[in-house]
Amino acid sequence: MTDKKSNAMWGGRFAAGPDAIMEAINASIDFDKRLASQDIAGSRAHAAMLAKQGILTDTDAEAIREGLLTVLSEIERGEFTFSTALEDIHMNVESRLKEIIGEAAGRLHTARSRNDQVATDFKLWVRDQIDAAISGLEALIRALIAQAEKGADWVMPGFTHLQTAQPVTWGHHMMAYVEMFGRDMSRFNDARVRMNESPLGSAALAGTGFPIDRHMTAEALGFDRPTANSLDAVADRDFALEFLSSASICAMHLSRFAEELVIWSSAQFRFVALSDRFSTGSSIMPQKKNPDAAELIRAKIGRIFGANVALMTVMKGLPLAYSKDMQEDKEQVFDAADNLMLALAAMTGMVSDMTANVDNLRAAAASGFSTATDLADWLVREAGLPFRDAHHVTGALVAMAEKKGVDLPDLSLDEMKSVNEAITEGVYDVLTVENSVASRTSYGGTAPAQVRAQIARWKEVLG
Amino acid sequence: MTDKKSNAMWGGRFAAGPDAIMEAINASIDFDKRLASQDIAGSRAHAAMLAKQGILTDTDAEAIREGLLTVLSEIERGEFTFSTALEDIHMNVESRLKEIIGEAAGRLHTARSRNDQVATDFKLWVRDQIDAAISGLEALIRALIAQAEKGADWVMPGFTHLQTAQPVTWGHHMMAYVEMFGRDMSRFNDARVRMNESPLGSAALAGTGFPIDRHMTAEALGFDRPTANSLDAVADRDFALEFLSSASICAMHLSRFAEELVIWSSAQFRFVALSDRFSTGSSIMPQKKNPDAAELIRAKIGRIFGANVALMTVMKGLPLAYSKDMQEDKEQVFDAADNLMLALAAMTGMVSDMTANVDNLRAAAASGFSTATDLADWLVREAGLPFRDAHHVTGALVAMAEKKGVDLPDLSLDEMKSVNEAITEGVYDVLTVENSVASRTSYGGTAPAQVRAQIARWKEVLG
Amino acid sequence: MTDKKSNAMWGGRFAAGPDAIMEAINASIDFDKRLASQDIAGSRAHAAMLAKQGILTDTDAEAIREGLLTVLSEIERGEFTFSTALEDIHMNVESRLKEIIGEAAGRLHTARSRNDQVATDFKLWVRDQIDAAISGLEALIRALIAQAEKGADWVMPGFTHLQTAQPVTWGHHMMAYVEMFGRDMSRFNDARVRMNESPLGSAALAGTGFPIDRHMTAEALGFDRPTANSLDAVADRDFALEFLSSASICAMHLSRFAEELVIWSSAQFRFVALSDRFSTGSSIMPQKKNPDAAELIRAKIGRIFGANVALMTVMKGLPLAYSKDMQEDKEQVFDAADNLMLALAAMTGMVSDMTANVDNLRAAAASGFSTATDLADWLVREAGLPFRDAHHVTGALVAMAEKKGVDLPDLSLDEMKSVNEAITEGVYDVLTVENSVASRTSYGGTAPAQVRAQIARWKEVLG
Amino acid sequence: MTDKKSNAMWGGRFAAGPDAIMEAINASIDFDKRLASQDIAGSRAHAAMLAKQGILTDTDAEAIREGLLTVLSEIERGEFTFSTALEDIHMNVESRLKEIIGEAAGRLHTARSRNDQVATDFKLWVRDQIDAAISGLEALIRALIAQAEKGADWVMPGFTHLQTAQPVTWGHHMMAYVEMFGRDMSRFNDARVRMNESPLGSAALAGTGFPIDRHMTAEALGFDRPTANSLDAVADRDFALEFLSSASICAMHLSRFAEELVIWSSAQFRFVALSDRFSTGSSIMPQKKNPDAAELIRAKIGRIFGANVALMTVMKGLPLAYSKDMQEDKEQVFDAADNLMLALAAMTGMVSDMTANVDNLRAAAASGFSTATDLADWLVREAGLPFRDAHHVTGALVAMAEKKGVDLPDLSLDEMKSVNEAITEGVYDVLTVENSVASRTSYGGTAPAQVRAQIARWKEVLG
Repeated sequence: MTDKKSNAMWGGRFAAGPDAIMEAINASIDFDKRLASQDIAGSRAHAAMLAKQGILTDTDAEAIREGLLTVLSEIERGEFTFSTALEDIHMNVESRLKEIIGEAAGRLHTARSRNDQVATDFKLWVRDQIDAAISGLEALIRALIAQAEKGADWVMPGFTHLQTAQPVTWGHHMMAYVEMFGRDMSRFNDARVRMNESPLGSAALAGTGFPIDRHMTAEALGFDRPTANSLDAVADRDFALEFLSSASICAMHLSRFAEELVIWSSAQFRFVALSDRFSTGSSIMPQKKNPDAAELIRAKIGRIFGANVALMTVMKGLPLAYSKDMQEDKEQVFDAADNLMLALAAMTGMVSDMTANVDNLRAAAASGFSTATDLADWLVREAGLPFRDAHHVTGALVAMAEKKGVDLPDLSLDEMKSVNEAITEGVYDVLTVENSVASRTSYGGTAPAQVRAQIARWKEVLG
Repeated sequence: MTDKKSNAMWGGRFAAGPDAIMEAINASIDFDKRLASQDIAGSRAHAAMLAKQGILTDTDAEAIREGLLTVLSEIERGEFTFSTALEDIHMNVESRLKEIIGEAAGRLHTARSRNDQVATDFKLWVRDQIDAAISGLEALIRALIAQAEKGADWVMPGFTHLQTAQPVTWGHHMMAYVEMFGRDMSRFNDARVRMNESPLGSAALAGTGFPIDRHMTAEALGFDRPTANSLDAVADRDFALEFLSSASICAMHLSRFAEELVIWSSAQFRFVALSDRFSTGSSIMPQKKNPDAAELIRAKIGRIFGANVALMTVMKGLPLAYSKDMQEDKEQVFDAADNLMLALAAMTGMVSDMTANVDNLRAAAASGFSTATDLADWLVREAGLPFRDAHHVTGALVAMAEKKGVDLPDLSLDEMKSVNEAITEGVYDVLTVENSVASRTSYGGTAPAQVRAQIARWKEVLG
Repeated sequence: MTDKKSNAMWGGRFAAGPDAIMEAINASIDFDKRLASQDIAGSRAHAAMLAKQGILTDTDAEAIREGLLTVLSEIERGEFTFSTALEDIHMNVESRLKEIIGEAAGRLHTARSRNDQVATDFKLWVRDQIDAAISGLEALIRALIAQAEKGADWVMPGFTHLQTAQPVTWGHHMMAYVEMFGRDMSRFNDARVRMNESPLGSAALAGTGFPIDRHMTAEALGFDRPTANSLDAVADRDFALEFLSSASICAMHLSRFAEELVIWSSAQFRFVALSDRFSTGSSIMPQKKNPDAAELIRAKIGRIFGANVALMTVMKGLPLAYSKDMQEDKEQVFDAADNLMLALAAMTGMVSDMTANVDNLRAAAASGFSTATDLADWLVREAGLPFRDAHHVTGALVAMAEKKGVDLPDLSLDEMKSVNEAITEGVYDVLTVENSVASRTSYGGTAPAQVRAQIARWKEVLG
Repeated sequence: MTDKKSNAMWGGRFAAGPDAIMEAINASIDFDKRLASQDIAGSRAHAAMLAKQGILTDTDAEAIREGLLTVLSEIERGEFTFSTALEDIHMNVESRLKEIIGEAAGRLHTARSRNDQVATDFKLWVRDQIDAAISGLEALIRALIAQAEKGADWVMPGFTHLQTAQPVTWGHHMMAYVEMFGRDMSRFNDARVRMNESPLGSAALAGTGFPIDRHMTAEALGFDRPTANSLDAVADRDFALEFLSSASICAMHLSRFAEELVIWSSAQFRFVALSDRFSTGSSIMPQKKNPDAAELIRAKIGRIFGANVALMTVMKGLPLAYSKDMQEDKEQVFDAADNLMLALAAMTGMVSDMTANVDNLRAAAASGFSTATDLADWLVREAGLPFRDAHHVTGALVAMAEKKGVDLPDLSLDEMKSVNEAITEGVYDVLTVENSVASRTSYGGTAPAQVRAQIARWKEVLG
């Protein structure tokens, strides 16, 4: 029943036979229409250059450049009819241009080909996404810094293996993500510099005999320079792969924070309360809040990294220069970029909105003998014990406290001395979680002073 | 310039702030509307069962079942307005049902939840795709068999390392792919059997206290049985992953054949001529034919396997039972399925249409001393030389022929005997490519008789 | 400093120049020596067949078969010297055989080539791993069943979004994994059936003219039949990819359970106590137990699925028949298989050893108004409210209870009636977690009776 | 039979039960011993800093630093016995140090933990690999430039879709890869700058209360600065992922060139002859050369990108700070780095050794009407035809030539004029492949002059 339906659908789709199949597999206009504004920007720069070099008359060039603006505004107003028979965005635009300005449209394609044209369009699009990613990351970092400032000295458990290890500060935890997303910004910046070379004028693959000025079009489109090898220029998709790689690492960072938010929102943890705006409720359990946005962000690494795998697989083993396989590049990057921007925006919103349960965080930090390391360090530092001996003594004291059902600061000095004579009253100074975090003033450590220093540094960086 | 534009677009999209972001990341109706017919089939089966079990009145059940058909026909006619505010296909359908039949619609959701509902819908959809894949594979296999029958005895080079190794037959080469695609069919069949269990009635995750009959709904929907654990039923996406795994291996087979077609179509090989329908031309070089369809098929493994990676990554480390991460499952499978079906259809068309250049194939097969192995085997078999000695003698003869600029059959018997006395006139029987292939009659070998036997076997299998 | 060192190392390694590089990239003996016993089993079967077919004398065949046993025992005793100059396991074995039995060794390679030989060896190895995986899964399933039996009626929270949704039973949760690992067994079984065809006798790619009996060698090696196409036989690595796909899905299941064990072991959850044997401690915090084994199991999906990606990428776009690229197949499968078996064994040990904290589980299950759904269902079933109305009433009651800081069963009947008149004393029967789980008797539901039925079914399946 | 064997092996391995399993899954010494020199360098820097800060006596520090050198030389001489019971490289080194220098060894671990220690070791190792990759890339680029210089004006076909499109120069094709590998160098350089921050002194996760100087150890180990957040420092594996991403893109480039070399080496193309050193022969066909090294290089992208997938999957969704999952990082990076260096070395050797078949390249370039585009451009440039008209005329002339079985330059001027009157004698200047390539002087074009300009630029860049 459903089977037949499905077969019918497919049968229907391809009922017209091979032609319908070929059109379905070959045409790209369904997705590459997203490159319309880039395509038109590239063509306008090309026309201006052709005119300056005397390859086109000024009149033709002007007509082309004006006509392209008309096409763009039709597209932006949603009044443009895209045609699958015209295959791609380049032919759709050129065909409409011809309707508007007539024969002169036919001169635009001089000294270029669809190979350098699509490389240019796609690079411009990816460059925009890099800029958008950097903006999105900056917004997220600012949201994290705001949280870090609020709770520079709130104490929470620092986990290893999801087991309480040592107390840290909320601000310190937030700033850990600032470092990660800061590296992501830096990675996108490097990718932008590397990819910012113009393929335009590489023509089909060999360059051209027309006396074009590739530096002029490069500059007009905001590129730093033209690409240096025309074969490479039309065969290269590094810029897309590097965008996907950087996006994947960023998505991995998002997945880690999202995982923490899901765990922290559980009834067992209750470390944070997410806002209603980024949760969903239950008609039946009004008190319940599902961290849907966090879960969806956690999942986004799947499709973003999947896109990376997809394009890498496509490019594997392709001989130079252009092969049609490369038409599969755009949908992957479009989807990955859309989802990265969405995930960054959602995470920024969630971080801005979330409320830490300061009491729960402190209580969790204080349990599990989390200052045992501080005790051991005190024994080394103040009582002069070798590191391994200090560990042994600490273990004995923790065992004693556990047996008595109390925490470390609850042991009396006599009890302490019964394990090691060298212990003095001063030890109690390091056994509270507040003193523990305050003491960790090494560069990059969890002490509130250190956290505030890093906040200050980051604010300066962001300006 | 383009940057600002892009930022504006994103800014615009999320201008309404957090609510717009949450809707964008949370709603699934944009893609899960493809599950409409499955959703309605599931609901109709559920309603019938509720009535039979006395949980619903017959009147209500009938109203629901009829109302759902109305909704379905609205969707099929394109007259249904999907609402993002209603999030997903389930709520969209139920909401419209309520408009049509009133309060009774509210009773449909008894003894189920969206968790088992979406699992059921998605399984039905994937099952349809498995059936479509099997149909597509069968069509492709028939096209290959037709080619194999035509050229069961056409001789062509058998390559290793893309170097001529031994002569084989065209039919044999075609039938190699029949074996591959046959395994794909078998793999999809196994996946279908394994996944064909109904999640319906598992409710949110724990089953239900209503006296439902899950065997009845299972049967109504063509499932072999209900799933045996309700937690697993709503947490499981194995069926999607196994579909993607099988599709990936199938796409890998397609990529290998596509690669061969691209190479075979080059000016240097000219082993096949692809039809105009599956190539694209050049306005400037009318004789040129680009194998676009083959290249695009070769590339499809990228997105299909990318989808596999994406979903596997999503599922990694998810605790039971349902997590919102799993909403990312559908788009990956939709895209992979669409592209697999398209690639199968395009390959079937290309194989049906293509023409082997029989003369070129034979000439290529006869060059490069491709019967050297036959000569060596003859020396073992007829002249009693040990295998390694036979190789040595053959090497000397090939070197002699190469030096003289002739092929092996062009060496005189005296010349042969000068290398090894045991060689007799009979050796010439194995030195032509026709005799070479004819001799390889081991089971599964390249001899035309063997190829025809396998064709016959496959025809019987396919019925 | 370290840089120079590293460069020196590389420089040193390749100091001998191109020959050292080629040997390093080309030789496979470092890893394919793991195929020694399979290689020898294949050769012994081949020799016996050659003798029966009169291609080899009985004397030679006997010498070969005995000699190979000697080689095998040398290898098993660690007395065999593998030579990189001899490249691979096949040449290493044959060369040693010649030292032992002399010239007759040279006749073994009649009517086969390294292409069908390595395909045979590798298939035998993978088949062994499939069997090992099935054994490992069976052991794990038995361990899960033992846990399920113990706690068929222990109540714990059933989570969605890691938020308490409804009470379920410990046994039910354990049996959810039994279903998953059961599907894994079934998937491996299907893969075994599909791959169990012998490539031996396909020779280089075209079959052979010697009158061999491929059915005889197939049977001797435990294969169901010979492969039906010699080109496919040497070009096919589906069996490795299907093993890796199945292993990946299995590793995904393991990662989910491992994630739960990590979360359940946290101080905040304390749902289970892992044994010391599968945890690591801290010298300083004797009470601390890190769930190292669970974390490592959670991570294994990385390398197992990474191996799947690696081999799929290698196979993409390879023309027939054999290409040297395929030599990259073995290390991936070896590593994935080793790690899968290790992860299964470790998980089996952990499951056997772990202790549920029954009190914590029950307490967690009873919090968060987890029986709200039972209340709503009661309102539909007993009070005749439409589903959506029942939800509304339940929501109001939960809100009332939350406001009062009590749980649902603590509301008085009057309070209940103040929200909806139809509520009667009977409602209290469904408000305890024990009654909740006991009521969910739908097939596959969480009721202890259902869980025990599934345990019984599985015990019968396993025998 | 083989099954039992395998089971026995596994059974044997784990015969000792859970302890053997835990050791097998938990210990890392088998692979992390590769970090020995980095571990010792880090410890020596740490000890010197502790002494300068007064945390350690100079005597102890000196003993430690000397003792560590002794350990290093034992390891380098192969005289060190690694112990699995001691789990990892850190404990193995420290334990041996204690044997050598006694109690003072116990003070080395002050103010650090294994978490920052392993992060430091691994970063140092990865940094070395980045340097090695850059060296390897530079060597490869020099080999490509040498080929480009030799054949700056050799004409060969430029392909799109593996169909002859336009003539290009050998030098131009070689320089396309120089651009790709140049981007790889730049990508590794950026990664190096980004990762070059020292985690040492971050301790377990929170920093330390000892008055350490992290800037001093950073400088001693060649880092630019210490990391700014101790939680991030122990939880971060970006440096490994960015190495793997960059290595994957580089491996993709290698796979494209390797594919070309395999195709170019086929009997049908014969564009290049690879050296014997990077090919393998056949005992039976002495003239045959299999491009084994090229095929293996083509395959390496599989395992390198597979490693990227593996580690990305491991890191997905890990909460801060350290989780044991991260122990799976090293083997992936080790394997990917080894194989990248090997592939780069092999490709460099192959490129240096290969010989272009200049005559075959030219003949292939001249076939297929490859100067049709030049003709069309001439019609635009010299005869003033609009672009699209010029294409139409060219198509008609190509069709005429094809019908007559001649090439474009063989058409008489009268024949040309019969299609378009505007054609003059001058047209013949652009119809030879030499003139075609010479004319394409746009920046980055295929003209020998352009190629030589790019060679000169690259020589300057490399110094």
